[in-house]
Amino acid sequence: MNARVLVNGLGTDSVSALDRGLAYGDGLFETIRLVDGTAPFWPRHMQRLAAGCARLGLPKVDADGLWREALQVTQAMPQAVVRITLTRGIGQRGYALPIGTNPTRIVAGFEPPVIDRSVYRDGLRLRVCELRLASQPLLAGIKHLNRLEQVLARAEWDDPTVEEGVLRDIHGNVVSAISANLFAVVAGRLRTPAVDRCGVAGVGRAEVLAVCPHSQVGLLSLEALFAASEVFLVSSVRGVVPVRCLARQGYAPGATTRRLQQHWHELGFPMEQAG
Amino acid sequence: MNARVLVNGLGTDSVSALDRGLAYGDGLFETIRLVDGTAPFWPRHMQRLAAGCARLGLPKVDADGLWREALQVTQAMPQAVVRITLTRGIGQRGYALPIGTNPTRIVAGFEPPVIDRSVYRDGLRLRVCELRLASQPLLAGIKHLNRLEQVLARAEWDDPTVEEGVLRDIHGNVVSAISANLFAVVAGRLRTPAVDRCGVAGVGRAEVLAVCPHSQVGLLSLEALFAASEVFLVSSVRGVVPVRCLARQGYAPGATTRRLQQHWHELGFPMEQAG
Repeated sequence: MNARVLVNGLGTDSVSALDRGLAYGDGLFETIRLVDGTAPFWPRHMQRLAAGCARLGLPKVDADGLWREALQVTQAMPQAVVRITLTRGIGQRGYALPIGTNPTRIVAGFEPPVIDRSVYRDGLRLRVCELRLASQPLLAGIKHLNRLEQVLARAEWDDPTVEEGVLRDIHGNVVSAISANLFAVVAGRLRTPAVDRCGVAGVGRAEVLAVCPHSQVGLLSLEALFAASEVFLVSSVRGVVPVRCLARQGYAPGATTRRLQQHWHELGFPMEQAG
Repeated sequence: MNARVLVNGLGTDSVSALDRGLAYGDGLFETIRLVDGTAPFWPRHMQRLAAGCARLGLPKVDADGLWREALQVTQAMPQAVVRITLTRGIGQRGYALPIGTNPTRIVAGFEPPVIDRSVYRDGLRLRVCELRLASQPLLAGIKHLNRLEQVLARAEWDDPTVEEGVLRDIHGNVVSAISANLFAVVAGRLRTPAVDRCGVAGVGRAEVLAVCPHSQVGLLSLEALFAASEVFLVSSVRGVVPVRCLARQGYAPGATTRRLQQHWHELGFPMEQAG
């Protein structure tokens, strides 16, 4: 595991075994793509982190301080992924909030995953996961540390030719992929599921919705997804990636996918161009 | 925070900042009451931990090794609480299971909470929490590290005279208290909610069900709870504690509560007797 890590600003890669982030998943994270010392979606990441802090009752973050630390852990890395983890810190045993919260701040820099250009050109193969995401409006949308559903969903298969999975809610409607949001062009309209009962409001998703303001956010059935003319995933780490196959249904990357890949490219992301 | 801690058998209180227990809440825990170097419910704790490992795809635990470590962190403590945390260990970034899992094992010994004898005699005051527990059958019953729902529920109030909260499911039916299971005697019958869609299958709950095999496990409405003749909580740390008040409804500790407190006392728990 090659990562440079700062914990509360100090160059260490260890945290207390009594941290509430570990004890209860009591915290938040952001995974941020850096390119040549810039992060095009930084304001969106900080906005979501602030929303998460408000939801969980954590103190406001110092975005400028986080940015300095993000640069510090990715020094001399032209391409990098930074994970920021924010927890409620060390507390007494028990769920009650500690008096005078002293959060733990972990900033870790990683090499970005190697993604072949053919992935951006041709797309990924997806499966439909069995696991149904539970409905919890109080936790939906934010990027909190309670991610066992994603771990279990990803553990459903080990076929390396299947690269991602579609997650559904308890009613069987589509929510997202496991580590990305999902968009589909259905009957000429760009659609993505709402994330107000489960799922994460990704920063890439927010960018797509800003670029395509007439997108429809709401229920997306599996049937509608199978009937889509194009399907793509978007995540802060990988950008816009076409879906070429879901179960036995094939798709060709379409004009909307290409236009958004181009948009990512113009923002400075180097790999988001079609090959 | 006074605690003696072993991490993978070593006397340290720190874990890697890249541990999946912290990154995703990818793990399990047990909170075990020790009395004079014994833990009456140890086999039940190990049984639940094993069930959790099977559910999450974690390697089997070495119960004998855990017991030695539990004794080590509670040496010279006649009364103690041991928290065992088991995570999937350090992994690459991303939800996919690491190849060759190397779990992290944290065993921490704490002083037990100070509980006045009047609590066992007269009972606790409870509120009804607003938060509804999400339904996730794949995670229900086991004691995993994704506990943000419990944290948020406990954060709903700060009135120190209210000691616990009743959690309901998405349909409004009673599930448990925040850090204990709940039993009610309704129309002469001992009842406790099922925990197959949400909630934790507590070891104390299992003991009550073994002692009272005619208990009814199933739906428990809030109305039925309000109409109960006696209500009590059971947890591995605090044992059997009567409920004296839920919102504006009062209860008197009844014969079933007293009989179970006596059973706990006979198992060796010193404080579980009525004053």
